[in-house]
Amino acid sequence: MSTRIPIGILGATGTVGQRFVQLLADHPWFEVASLAASERSAGRPYADVCNWIMPGDPPPGVGEMIVSPLEPSLPARIVFSALPAAIAREVEPLFAHDGYVVCSNASAWRYEPNVPLIIPEVNADHLALIEQQRAGEDWPGLIVTSPNCTTTGMVIPLKPLDQAFGLQKVFATTLQAISGAGYPGIASLDILGNVVPYVGGEEEKMVRETRLLLGRVVEDCRSEADVVVSAHANRVQVLDGHTICLSLGFERRPTAEEAIAVLTDFRGPAGVRDLPSAPEHPILVRLEPSRPQPRRDCGAEGGMAVTVGRVRECPLLDLRLVTVSHNTLRGAAGGSILNAELLVAKGYVV
Amino acid sequence: MSTRIPIGILGATGTVGQRFVQLLADHPWFEVASLAASERSAGRPYADVCNWIMPGDPPPGVGEMIVSPLEPSLPARIVFSALPAAIAREVEPLFAHDGYVVCSNASAWRYEPNVPLIIPEVNADHLALIEQQRAGEDWPGLIVTSPNCTTTGMVIPLKPLDQAFGLQKVFATTLQAISGAGYPGIASLDILGNVVPYVGGEEEKMVRETRLLLGRVVEDCRSEADVVVSAHANRVQVLDGHTICLSLGFERRPTAEEAIAVLTDFRGPAGVRDLPSAPEHPILVRLEPSRPQPRRDCGAEGGMAVTVGRVRECPLLDLRLVTVSHNTLRGAAGGSILNAELLVAKGYVV
Amino acid sequence: MSTRIPIGILGATGTVGQRFVQLLADHPWFEVASLAASERSAGRPYADVCNWIMPGDPPPGVGEMIVSPLEPSLPARIVFSALPAAIAREVEPLFAHDGYVVCSNASAWRYEPNVPLIIPEVNADHLALIEQQRAGEDWPGLIVTSPNCTTTGMVIPLKPLDQAFGLQKVFATTLQAISGAGYPGIASLDILGNVVPYVGGEEEKMVRETRLLLGRVVEDCRSEADVVVSAHANRVQVLDGHTICLSLGFERRPTAEEAIAVLTDFRGPAGVRDLPSAPEHPILVRLEPSRPQPRRDCGAEGGMAVTVGRVRECPLLDLRLVTVSHNTLRGAAGGSILNAELLVAKGYVV
Amino acid sequence: MSTRIPIGILGATGTVGQRFVQLLADHPWFEVASLAASERSAGRPYADVCNWIMPGDPPPGVGEMIVSPLEPSLPARIVFSALPAAIAREVEPLFAHDGYVVCSNASAWRYEPNVPLIIPEVNADHLALIEQQRAGEDWPGLIVTSPNCTTTGMVIPLKPLDQAFGLQKVFATTLQAISGAGYPGIASLDILGNVVPYVGGEEEKMVRETRLLLGRVVEDCRSEADVVVSAHANRVQVLDGHTICLSLGFERRPTAEEAIAVLTDFRGPAGVRDLPSAPEHPILVRLEPSRPQPRRDCGAEGGMAVTVGRVRECPLLDLRLVTVSHNTLRGAAGGSILNAELLVAKGYVV
Repeated sequence: MSTRIPIGILGATGTVGQRFVQLLADHPWFEVASLAASERSAGRPYADVCNWIMPGDPPPGVGEMIVSPLEPSLPARIVFSALPAAIAREVEPLFAHDGYVVCSNASAWRYEPNVPLIIPEVNADHLALIEQQRAGEDWPGLIVTSPNCTTTGMVIPLKPLDQAFGLQKVFATTLQAISGAGYPGIASLDILGNVVPYVGGEEEKMVRETRLLLGRVVEDCRSEADVVVSAHANRVQVLDGHTICLSLGFERRPTAEEAIAVLTDFRGPAGVRDLPSAPEHPILVRLEPSRPQPRRDCGAEGGMAVTVGRVRECPLLDLRLVTVSHNTLRGAAGGSILNAELLVAKGYVV
Repeated sequence: MSTRIPIGILGATGTVGQRFVQLLADHPWFEVASLAASERSAGRPYADVCNWIMPGDPPPGVGEMIVSPLEPSLPARIVFSALPAAIAREVEPLFAHDGYVVCSNASAWRYEPNVPLIIPEVNADHLALIEQQRAGEDWPGLIVTSPNCTTTGMVIPLKPLDQAFGLQKVFATTLQAISGAGYPGIASLDILGNVVPYVGGEEEKMVRETRLLLGRVVEDCRSEADVVVSAHANRVQVLDGHTICLSLGFERRPTAEEAIAVLTDFRGPAGVRDLPSAPEHPILVRLEPSRPQPRRDCGAEGGMAVTVGRVRECPLLDLRLVTVSHNTLRGAAGGSILNAELLVAKGYVV
Repeated sequence: MSTRIPIGILGATGTVGQRFVQLLADHPWFEVASLAASERSAGRPYADVCNWIMPGDPPPGVGEMIVSPLEPSLPARIVFSALPAAIAREVEPLFAHDGYVVCSNASAWRYEPNVPLIIPEVNADHLALIEQQRAGEDWPGLIVTSPNCTTTGMVIPLKPLDQAFGLQKVFATTLQAISGAGYPGIASLDILGNVVPYVGGEEEKMVRETRLLLGRVVEDCRSEADVVVSAHANRVQVLDGHTICLSLGFERRPTAEEAIAVLTDFRGPAGVRDLPSAPEHPILVRLEPSRPQPRRDCGAEGGMAVTVGRVRECPLLDLRLVTVSHNTLRGAAGGSILNAELLVAKGYVV
Repeated sequence: MSTRIPIGILGATGTVGQRFVQLLADHPWFEVASLAASERSAGRPYADVCNWIMPGDPPPGVGEMIVSPLEPSLPARIVFSALPAAIAREVEPLFAHDGYVVCSNASAWRYEPNVPLIIPEVNADHLALIEQQRAGEDWPGLIVTSPNCTTTGMVIPLKPLDQAFGLQKVFATTLQAISGAGYPGIASLDILGNVVPYVGGEEEKMVRETRLLLGRVVEDCRSEADVVVSAHANRVQVLDGHTICLSLGFERRPTAEEAIAVLTDFRGPAGVRDLPSAPEHPILVRLEPSRPQPRRDCGAEGGMAVTVGRVRECPLLDLRLVTVSHNTLRGAAGGSILNAELLVAKGYVV
C-alpha cells in the first residue's frame, strides 16, 4: 500500500494540468489520486477528454482515470489548481473551506493580503500569512499561490541581487514562449515568423508580483518591496522557455563580477534546498556571450533552475543581464509542486 | 538612350547587394550599370555566382550581367556599397578618390569625423561635412554612409520626440530578424524555436550611431548628442523586420497622447519628402494593443516607413513604445538609395 | 461614375474573404460593392469585425463599409463565396435563385452533376453544365465552383501532361501551408517545429476533384477521368504555399525532357489567357535541384502561376516532379476571381 | 576501477559526434576513453573546440578531455565513427587494420560487399559478412556500418511487413529535420517558413540501402532484396525527427488491420531485444488520425522506437502509412551504439 500523499489536480486537462500530471507521475511524496475538470469532461476517462499536447502519452494508468467534477469531494489532501482565474476565484475557497491544502497556479487569489505568494527559495517565510488566513477565513484548509511564469523566472535572480545590493529599479523586456498561452492559445497564423509585442495582463503582473515576492512579512502583515518595475512583454516563436532582458538599478552599484559571484553562490534556504523538486542550483550563470537561450537552457536542472547570462554593466542603470527559465515547469506546475513540498516539510499537511 | 544615372553595386551578390539589385530594377533616376564583387565572382554572369535568396528571380536582364572586380573602373557615377566592413575600409576610398559618389551601407567609415552618417528625414543637414571631407582628402568623389539597420528603425521615431521633448535616455531591447545576419548567416540549428540574446557589435553601434545621428553639425564639425543609450540585442526567428522595445526619458515628460501626435505629424524636411524612395509618412502610428508586428508591418510604405505602437507611459523613465522597421529595406539598401537620391537633389552628383 | 461590375463577398471577414478584399481592391472589371458575413458581424463596419491577418491594413475605403447579412439583397451582380461548406450549402442557392452569379470557393456544391468545377486553363469548356443547371433548377443566376487549394496546384500541371501522355496514376504527398486552415486554424502549439500528417478531408477532395477537373463534358453530361489518385496530406510550418511531391504514371512514358517541354509550353486556351487575373505562364518550370520552394516561388506571377521542379523519372511509375502553388491566391480567392472573369468574358454576367 | 569497455569517438565534435558523447555518458557497457577529431581540434580540450549545440552542457568530465588526432592509437577497443564520408573512407580501414572494432555511421563503406550494413532488429544475421571481411582484408579489427537516418526509420517498419506479406514496391516521401544536415547545415534564411524539396544524395541512399537491409546473406554473400523504391526527399522546419509518407505494394495485399497487427507484434530477435539500447517495442503503432508527429513522437523509447500511424489502404498500391523516427538517435548515434552492443553480445569484441 502506498504511503504517498494523495493529491488532486484541478483543471487537469489543460496545458498546465498536463504538466502536473507529467511531473507527479513518479513523485516520491505525492500520488495522483484524482483528476478534476469542468462539467464537460467529468465522468469520462482522462485519455478521452484530454488533448495531450506533450511528447508521447500520459503516464501509465492516468489515461484510464475517470475525471471528477470540480467539487471538494476528491480523495486527496492536497489539490493543485491549474484553473482559469475566474473559476479558481470561486472553486479554490470551497476546497480550502473543506480542509484541502490548495496549491494554486492561478492568479485569482495571489494578491489577497492573507494569501501567501511563494517561491520557496525567495520568500518561504511568507508562509507565516497562513495563520492569518486560517484565523480570518475560519478554514481548516488553506490556499498558497505561486506567481506568474514570467515573474518567477525574473524574481529568482533578483532575490540574491536585492539582498546583496538593494534593488531599486527594474527594466524588463520579455520574449515569451507560446506554451505560456495555453491551448489552443496563439494561432499559428499570428506567431509564425513573427513577434507579438503584447501579452495581456503580463506587464501588470510582473510589476505587482515582484513587489510582493521581494516584500516582507512582519507580524503576519505583508508589505510590498519598494521596487519600480517597467516591463515590455512580447510573444515569440519559441515552444518553451521565457527569456527576459533586464537592466537593474541598486542602492549600491555592483560590478559584473560581484553580481556573478552573488548569483552563482545563491542557494535556497535550509529546509528548501533538499525538497524533492528543488534544483541544486536555483540559478545557473553562463559566461558565453550568446547564452542563455530558451531551447538550450530552459530545461536546466529538470526545468527548475533559472539560467542567467550576459551579466554586464548598464550605462543607464547599474547592471544588465538576461534570464531564461522554463515557463510551465519552474514557472507553473513545478513551482506549485515545490510549494506543496515546502508545506509538507513545514507541517502544514496533516 | 537612357538618361538615368548609371550606378554600380559593390558587393552585389550578398543579401544586401541583392536588395539593391531588386530596388533599383525600376528606379526612376538610377540605372544598374555594373555589378561588382570579389575576385571569386568577377568575370562571370551574375546569375551564376549569386545565390539569389529572395522570392522569384533577379530582375530581367540582371542575371546575364558580367560581374566586375571591385576596382574603380566601373561605368557608373554613384556606387552603392554592400561590402563587408573590412573590405569596405579599403575599397570605398579608392572609389571616392577616383571621383565616384559612394553611398555606403557598410560600417567601415561611419564614425570618421568627416564622413556623413545620414538618414535624410533625420539629419540631411549633416551633408555639410562633405565639404570638409573633400578638402581634407582631396577627393573629387565622396563617401556618405547610412546607419546600422537597427539604429535606423530606432532613430527615425526618436528624432521628432527629441525635437519636441528633449531626448536624454534610451533603454532599447531589440528582437532582430535573421536576414540582418546575411547569408548563410545564422544556422537554422541555432535559431529554430529559439532566441539568441546576442548580436555581435550591435549594441555598441546602437549607442554610437544614435548619438551621431541626433548630433549637430556646426561649422563643418559634428558633435554627438548627449543621449545615454542602453541596449540589449536579440536575434529571433523572424525573416524580415526588426522590433525594438523602447523606454525613453526626456527633458520634458510628454503624455502618450502628445507623443502620438508628434510621431503622427512627422514628415521629412522639404527636399526630402518628394524623393522617389521617401515614404509619405516616415512614421506610422498604430493604436491596436498587439501591433506593430514585424511580419505584418515591416513592409509599410514599401518597407521605408517605421511603424510605432504601444505608446504608453513608463514607470521608470517617461515613455514606452515599440517600433518595427524593415532591416534590409529602410535599414540597408533602401536607406542608402534614399541617401543617393538626396545627394542628387542637392547637386552632389554631377 | 464607375462602370465596373459591382460584386459582393460572402464570408468577407475570414482568411479567404480577406484575400478577395485584397485582390479586388484594384480590379479593372470588378468593384467591391458589399461585404456580407454572419449575423454576428452584420451591421457593423468591416474594420471593427474583421481581424485583418494580412500585412498592413485593408484597402482604403473598405474598413468603413458596413457588413451586410448573408441575404440575397446585395447591390451586386456577382457574389464570391468564401463561406464554410455547411453555410454555403444553404446560402449559395438562395443567391443563384435570386439571379446572382455565384463564384464559390466552398466545397458545398462542387460535386453536383450540374455545377461546374472550373480552373479556366484546365476545363473552361465545363461551363457548358450551366445550361443544364439553369434548366434543372430554374435559376436566373448560377453557381460555379473552384476546386480545393491543393487540387488546384496539382491539376494545373497534370493537365498538359494528361493531354500529351495520357495520365493514369497519381501518387501525391502534400506539404501544406497553415493559411489553408483559416483563422485561428492550427494552434501554434501543434505546428511549431512539427509536422501534422493529416488534413481533414483533403485526401478525399484531391481524389475526387482531380477526376472531375480532368473529366469531360459531353452533351451537358460530365464524366470523371479514369485516373487513380493516392494522396498523403501533411501540414507543415509554412505560411503560404502548398508543396506537392508527385509520381505519375501515363499511357505513354515521357522522358523528363519531354515532360519539361510540355509543361513549359502550356498556355491557357484563347479566351482565358487574356483575362485580367490570368498569369502569362500558368506553369513555370525551374531546373535548379532545390526548387520550387513555397516561400520563394508561391508568389510567382502574382500568385497565379504554379511552379514545377525536380522533373525526373520515377522507378515505380513514369515521372516524378514537385509543384508549389499559392493556396489562398491561385488556390482560393484568385481562382474564383479568374472564374468570374471567364464568366464575364463568356457572356454569363448580364 | 571500471570494467566497462573503453571506446573512442571519431569526429567527436560534430552533431552526430555530440550525440555519441551524450548517449554514452551513462552507458552500462561502454566508457568514453577518447575523443578524436581533425587536426584543427586535436590537442585541445573538448569544451574549447566543440560548439555544443544540444541542450545544456556536455556530460561531466567530457569537456576537459583532450581531443586526439584521427590516428589508430586511441586507448579503446571500439571506435564509433561520425566522420564525413571522404575522411571515413580513409580513416576507418586504418583503425580496422590496427585491430579496432569500427562501428561507423558514415556512408563511406556501407556498400562494400564484405561490410555489414546493420539494423539489429532487421538483419543481425548479416554480421556473417565479417568472416569474409576479415579473410579478405586480413584485418584483426572490423568495420560494421549503420544506415542513413532516413532509411533506418523506413526499413524498421518495412521489415515485419516484408516478412508477412512480401514487399515489392515502396513509394516514399520524406519530411526531414534540419539536424540531419549537421552544423551549421541549413541556413536559417533557406528553411525558415519554407520547404526545401531536395536533400543531396538522400534518395539514392534510400533506394540502395533498403535493398541491402532487406536482402539476404547466404554463404557469406549478400544479395539485394528485389524491392523497387521511389523516393522524394524534403527538408522541413523541424528540429529532430524524420517523417516519411509511405505507399507500399506487396505480393499479398494485407488489410490495414493485418498490417497493424504485424507492426504491433514486431520485436527484435532474441539476442537483440535485451541489448541495453534496444527499445522494448521497435515499432509503436498509433491510431489517432493526426499522429505520428515528429515533435511529439520522435523521442519514443529513448528515441530508439519508430512510431507508425495512419495505416490505411492505398488505391494505387496496397497500403499507406506514416512513420516518424529520431534521425540522430535511432537514425545515427543510437543505431551505431546498438550495433556495437550486438557485436559485444555476439563475441566480436575481445
